[in-house]
Amino acid sequence: MTSSPTQDDGSQFLTQLGQNSAQPASPEEARLERVPAPDRGRRYVVRFTAPEFTSLCPVTGQPDFAHIVIDYIPDEWIVESKSLKLFLTSFRNHGAFHERCSMQIATTLVDLLQPVWLRIGAYWYPRGGMPIDVFWQTSTPPEGVWIPAQDVPGYRGRG
Amino acid sequence: MTSSPTQDDGSQFLTQLGQNSAQPASPEEARLERVPAPDRGRRYVVRFTAPEFTSLCPVTGQPDFAHIVIDYIPDEWIVESKSLKLFLTSFRNHGAFHERCSMQIATTLVDLLQPVWLRIGAYWYPRGGMPIDVFWQTSTPPEGVWIPAQDVPGYRGRG
Amino acid sequence: MTSSPTQDDGSQFLTQLGQNSAQPASPEEARLERVPAPDRGRRYVVRFTAPEFTSLCPVTGQPDFAHIVIDYIPDEWIVESKSLKLFLTSFRNHGAFHERCSMQIATTLVDLLQPVWLRIGAYWYPRGGMPIDVFWQTSTPPEGVWIPAQDVPGYRGRG
Amino acid sequence: MTSSPTQDDGSQFLTQLGQNSAQPASPEEARLERVPAPDRGRRYVVRFTAPEFTSLCPVTGQPDFAHIVIDYIPDEWIVESKSLKLFLTSFRNHGAFHERCSMQIATTLVDLLQPVWLRIGAYWYPRGGMPIDVFWQTSTPPEGVWIPAQDVPGYRGRG
Amino acid sequence: MTSSPTQDDGSQFLTQLGQNSAQPASPEEARLERVPAPDRGRRYVVRFTAPEFTSLCPVTGQPDFAHIVIDYIPDEWIVESKSLKLFLTSFRNHGAFHERCSMQIATTLVDLLQPVWLRIGAYWYPRGGMPIDVFWQTSTPPEGVWIPAQDVPGYRGRG
Amino acid sequence: MTSSPTQDDGSQFLTQLGQNSAQPASPEEARLERVPAPDRGRRYVVRFTAPEFTSLCPVTGQPDFAHIVIDYIPDEWIVESKSLKLFLTSFRNHGAFHERCSMQIATTLVDLLQPVWLRIGAYWYPRGGMPIDVFWQTSTPPEGVWIPAQDVPGYRGRG
Amino acid sequence: MTSSPTQDDGSQFLTQLGQNSAQPASPEEARLERVPAPDRGRRYVVRFTAPEFTSLCPVTGQPDFAHIVIDYIPDEWIVESKSLKLFLTSFRNHGAFHERCSMQIATTLVDLLQPVWLRIGAYWYPRGGMPIDVFWQTSTPPEGVWIPAQDVPGYRGRG
Amino acid sequence: MTSSPTQDDGSQFLTQLGQNSAQPASPEEARLERVPAPDRGRRYVVRFTAPEFTSLCPVTGQPDFAHIVIDYIPDEWIVESKSLKLFLTSFRNHGAFHERCSMQIATTLVDLLQPVWLRIGAYWYPRGGMPIDVFWQTSTPPEGVWIPAQDVPGYRGRG
Amino acid sequence: MTSSPTQDDGSQFLTQLGQNSAQPASPEEARLERVPAPDRGRRYVVRFTAPEFTSLCPVTGQPDFAHIVIDYIPDEWIVESKSLKLFLTSFRNHGAFHERCSMQIATTLVDLLQPVWLRIGAYWYPRGGMPIDVFWQTSTPPEGVWIPAQDVPGYRGRG
Amino acid sequence: MTSSPTQDDGSQFLTQLGQNSAQPASPEEARLERVPAPDRGRRYVVRFTAPEFTSLCPVTGQPDFAHIVIDYIPDEWIVESKSLKLFLTSFRNHGAFHERCSMQIATTLVDLLQPVWLRIGAYWYPRGGMPIDVFWQTSTPPEGVWIPAQDVPGYRGRG
Ligand SMILES: [Ca+2]
Ligand SMILES: [Ca+2]
Ligand SMILES: [Ca+2]
Ligand SMILES: [Ca+2]
Ligand SMILES: [Ca+2]
Ligand SMILES: [Ca+2]
Ligand SMILES: [Ca+2]
Ligand SMILES: [Ca+2]
Ligand SMILES: [Ca+2]
Ligand SMILES: [Ca+2]
Ligand SMILES: [Ca+2]
Ligand SMILES: [Ca+2]
Ligand SMILES: [Ca+2]
Ligand SMILES: [Ca+2]
Ligand SMILES: [Ca+2]
Ligand SMILES: [Ca+2]
Repeated sequence: MTSSPTQDDGSQFLTQLGQNSAQPASPEEARLERVPAPDRGRRYVVRFTAPEFTSLCPVTGQPDFAHIVIDYIPDEWIVESKSLKLFLTSFRNHGAFHERCSMQIATTLVDLLQPVWLRIGAYWYPRGGMPIDVFWQTSTPPEGVWIPAQDVPGYRGRG
Repeated sequence: MTSSPTQDDGSQFLTQLGQNSAQPASPEEARLERVPAPDRGRRYVVRFTAPEFTSLCPVTGQPDFAHIVIDYIPDEWIVESKSLKLFLTSFRNHGAFHERCSMQIATTLVDLLQPVWLRIGAYWYPRGGMPIDVFWQTSTPPEGVWIPAQDVPGYRGRG
Repeated sequence: MTSSPTQDDGSQFLTQLGQNSAQPASPEEARLERVPAPDRGRRYVVRFTAPEFTSLCPVTGQPDFAHIVIDYIPDEWIVESKSLKLFLTSFRNHGAFHERCSMQIATTLVDLLQPVWLRIGAYWYPRGGMPIDVFWQTSTPPEGVWIPAQDVPGYRGRG
Repeated sequence: MTSSPTQDDGSQFLTQLGQNSAQPASPEEARLERVPAPDRGRRYVVRFTAPEFTSLCPVTGQPDFAHIVIDYIPDEWIVESKSLKLFLTSFRNHGAFHERCSMQIATTLVDLLQPVWLRIGAYWYPRGGMPIDVFWQTSTPPEGVWIPAQDVPGYRGRG
Repeated sequence: MTSSPTQDDGSQFLTQLGQNSAQPASPEEARLERVPAPDRGRRYVVRFTAPEFTSLCPVTGQPDFAHIVIDYIPDEWIVESKSLKLFLTSFRNHGAFHERCSMQIATTLVDLLQPVWLRIGAYWYPRGGMPIDVFWQTSTPPEGVWIPAQDVPGYRGRG
Repeated sequence: MTSSPTQDDGSQFLTQLGQNSAQPASPEEARLERVPAPDRGRRYVVRFTAPEFTSLCPVTGQPDFAHIVIDYIPDEWIVESKSLKLFLTSFRNHGAFHERCSMQIATTLVDLLQPVWLRIGAYWYPRGGMPIDVFWQTSTPPEGVWIPAQDVPGYRGRG
Repeated sequence: MTSSPTQDDGSQFLTQLGQNSAQPASPEEARLERVPAPDRGRRYVVRFTAPEFTSLCPVTGQPDFAHIVIDYIPDEWIVESKSLKLFLTSFRNHGAFHERCSMQIATTLVDLLQPVWLRIGAYWYPRGGMPIDVFWQTSTPPEGVWIPAQDVPGYRGRG
Repeated sequence: MTSSPTQDDGSQFLTQLGQNSAQPASPEEARLERVPAPDRGRRYVVRFTAPEFTSLCPVTGQPDFAHIVIDYIPDEWIVESKSLKLFLTSFRNHGAFHERCSMQIATTLVDLLQPVWLRIGAYWYPRGGMPIDVFWQTSTPPEGVWIPAQDVPGYRGRG
Repeated sequence: MTSSPTQDDGSQFLTQLGQNSAQPASPEEARLERVPAPDRGRRYVVRFTAPEFTSLCPVTGQPDFAHIVIDYIPDEWIVESKSLKLFLTSFRNHGAFHERCSMQIATTLVDLLQPVWLRIGAYWYPRGGMPIDVFWQTSTPPEGVWIPAQDVPGYRGRG
Repeated sequence: MTSSPTQDDGSQFLTQLGQNSAQPASPEEARLERVPAPDRGRRYVVRFTAPEFTSLCPVTGQPDFAHIVIDYIPDEWIVESKSLKLFLTSFRNHGAFHERCSMQIATTLVDLLQPVWLRIGAYWYPRGGMPIDVFWQTSTPPEGVWIPAQDVPGYRGRG
């Protein structure tokens, strides 16, 4: 992945949809972008909920699916949302284990944004009747910041 | 399975728990019993909900699980509930495909009880991320009988 | 049970609570009462939801519990609600199987009220991990009457 | 209640809130109004959901509460919504039994609107641990009209 | 509204987002478009769920909000989804009563698409603590077509 | 797609997972297979729930996601479940509009299985804040067969 | 309100229902009573849930409704539950703003009971599409006491 | 109640069901038993959920119902589960106020088990439209032990 | 926005609805007002839930929607609720990015009210299948104040 | 159980399904395996949800069922997921009390993985109408790690 910091003014997702953004074929090809954070002096949390994530099993090549929730506290930068969408999409033909894949998403964001704090919750669809979830945060969140629970319902099987 | 019609007076599940009922090793060994139906002149529905069902995959030998709901309208007989519990338990080491297994439960009950009407809803836990449900009833239910929906929630994956 | 038709003017539950109504010791001792139906020319449905029902297992003497919902279309009479409460309470020390007990409640009401139509849904708490529900109605409901589903959630076990 | 048919142009609830509408002290004082129905040639359903209904017990004087849902198919008239709000409010100090009160609301609307069809679902808060619901419709609804279920959750006690 | 039948090949919503579609200032200015229906020989249902609808109260000018669900069975045409989005958006500064506004959306679609059948469920946010819902369909749906319930939860107030 | 009827004995999904099934690159390459239906004289329903479906937008190339539920009544054949899984997976890099894609899945199954009856519910993730659902069945289902509602919750936006 | 501490033995709500308790016409007339707390040496929490609360808007005279939850840790006294019911009922014809009314309930209880700790959650029905909730506690609760979340669902509008 | 410490090896509930355990007529007659805790060196939590609890109002003699949840951290002993079931059942004909009854259950267990920590949540069914909950724990739980929320839904009335 | 502190006595929303309040055309034109806080010596929380929020995308001009929840602890002032409603409404034709818009609402309130503490949760409807939430509070809340979770359900996509 | 640490590269569940893994007949025969943890320098949580667990009652031989959730923070090793599945499956014919069985699963994992921290929540299906849950963690979790609540719904009986 080429993570090229840019300094434009934060044009948003829906706008960029109009451009012919080629779908990146892999996380390496995806171009995750950052823009200067608004209200930089304040510690707020931004949450992205991405229920449309899919990647491939590195061994069998079969598709895996996950519901992913990312929370972070910006420092100087926020992620440009369309580029985040494309970055997540870029795993579509990428093979990775659940734990590794979840961590790669998080650490790529951390490298780009240098946020005050970031966490990821990755809720994978079951395989063998048993789903795996992965939860990670960069550190204890700073005091005085409000971070609601992600509260994604647990897997319940049937009935 | 030996389905031995009996004519005792309907002693119930909790009573029989006290006896040393050996767990039947297979559906063939299970002894599903019937007792005379109370209120025989009336068309009522009896529903059993069995969320603790498990059998084996006939090919891999791996356990399968299902949430099973049975509705029926007795004619002369009702099923003795402890024997039904043991009958369902007898599939624990039995290998059968989802569709076949669901139907076998239903048709064994039909053979024994000769009910006015019976249906089964078998809600299997997902394999390969995709659960199978099987729904069967003996016929259009008779008019004038009230049969509420089973309303088992659909499978939702994650998120 | 002594079901003594009365013709008073329909004084309701909360009023009668103030009187020293002895708790009836059995369904036979309970005195289920009826009062003239209001709006007698119209076919409406009255639903009672009784989540506080308990009786005894006739074999072991152990308590059983049920959530009971009764729907009926009055003809000349409606049931007096405090007497219904006491009637249901009278099963507290009464031993009866699930199917029989459910039907007895319904048919006692039918005998007293001679309603246009009546149904009962009895949702028993699980025994042996498997609850029994009983559903009965007197007949196909008359046309032109609106009867919403009872929609009591199915038993789901755990998870 | 004085139900004075009017023929104004359907000015709605929020508008009338601005006027100093005195709260009517009883259903008799309430002035339920009607306005010409829009799209009169078409058979549509209008649903009002009123979770803020309260009246008094005619015997004890204690407050009763209900969640009320009204569905109807207009013919020439629709009810003016602010006047409906005030009409429902007028039961606040009115003593009436559950069944009677529910029917009075419905039949007052029927008298005023002469609708093609109307139904009421009145879901009363429990007394003695046992709520009463009342369901009534004027007749079988006409064919070709879509009337979704009211789907108000049943009373569940605790747990 | 100018409803200009077109005969292009069904290019979809996301594509058109890229074009500089001016937001139409009123339903009259909106240009609702149709494209030839795929699988024209088959009777299927298309459902649009639009939880982002807002219009204005014609009397006070205050915003109203609704959750709108449209189901229809195409005959020759389906609605082009981006133009539907823009059509719904065009009510943003349009004043209309709840009943009239709901019907206008539906009948405009009927005029354009000449569908086999269409229905609308409009679930308005409460005013005065009492929401209004409007339900309409063009006719009894044709036999043999499957139309699931809309199952939008009823309004529940608080608690 | 090559739909090659086979007559083997119904070996199931989990078994075939063990084989090195190459992921088909398109619906055309997928090899949907059928096996003889068990209990052929009986009219039962089989439901597959597939919450892990994804395809591409034919115009922008962006991924689309859907939750798909298929119900059918077998005649001579049932679909082999692993091949169904692979068939659904084969749309991963296939571009198709929502309505067309939903119908293609259904009609491919109909062609292969010649079922007594089949229906599909395709619940697409929102685009432009407005999801599309597609519902189709081959015909009115035959009498006497029990087909529970799919009851997939409607889209609710936020809050 | 006359808050007259009494020292009787804690007779409860249902008992007192039998007496002809006049409904107090205002909070000032209500007679909130206390009885000695059982298990006085122990720090337990008592929760009252009152979904049947109504008062009047001080400006318009229109009814307001709230779902109210009170938690407290008794010291020497507990509130007598029937008198609490009557106290809450006494706001029925009382005009007060949401914030003030919520606080008045809480502080009246505090004055009477001198509890170790008390909190109130008042969840008002929406006005202008926007409900107000009020949350107050006397202080940080003492250590070592277990106080579950009130977990009243948030207001969700429609859809 | 006779709480006779025993030292047998923890035979469980289902086993003892088979014995003719007389139902104890009062808490005093109930024989709550303890068995040595497994894994004694570890601090784990055991939760019992008892939705089938009933007692009597000490004043009116009317039945009360509660949903009860008990959490505890064993030290040397765990409670034998069938004896707990019988102990709870023994309140069936016992008169006690809500607060007192809840505390009696908890303190009896504390006396017998001398646990590291114990708490009870007693969620009583509403009387007068207003349920009482009682929450108590022996002390602040020890550090390093995981105790999930009981998360019993709040009472919501109707709608 | 002109935020003009006033010192009137707290007249509420419903009252002001009656006045011809012109809808402000932008946040700058809106006149957010404050009134003296009741119970000023006490630290309580006021929550406003606003599920009817809409603004515009600054790039495309397309409408955005959000469900917004504001919690604050008043010091000297509370916000006048009708002016808050109008202030939120004033974003209807205002273009702003999600993060910026959420912060602007919060900081405008902070400037006017100088509250002890304030937080905002802004739950935006999805764009590109991926919603953004923004969470901000002014600081760690003061000790001894009770602030329940906002508990807005997470976005779940479909199924 | 033979817990043989291995050092291969983490091949996952779906891959191993293809091999003819014999089902282990007991926990002793099961071969729980570990692989080196990815991202070893980071403290993340892995959650496994296993709703398909069953064992036997050691006294009666009857099946027990549980919904099990395991959370852990890896140090050097993660558990190989297929071997975990087989390990859990190996309890199928194993007799153990609820508390003991839950702890055995947890401590076996601890022995093998030497994790930074681990916890288990075991939610057993009811016996005698009263389910037992067991909660255990190795210690207070380390600071700076994010561990969401398991949030498995409580048992609710019926209604
Ligand atoms: Ca939660
Ligand atoms: Ca999903
Ligand atoms: Ca349902
Ligand atoms: Ca389950
Ligand atoms: Ca329903
Ligand atoms: Ca529904
Ligand atoms: Ca309510
Ligand atoms: Ca539904
Ligand atoms: Ca339904
Ligand atoms: Ca909404
Ligand atoms: Ca919560
Ligand atoms: Ca909670
Ligand atoms: Ca919860
Ligand atoms: Ca929550
Ligand atoms: Ca929770
Ligand atoms: Ca219950």
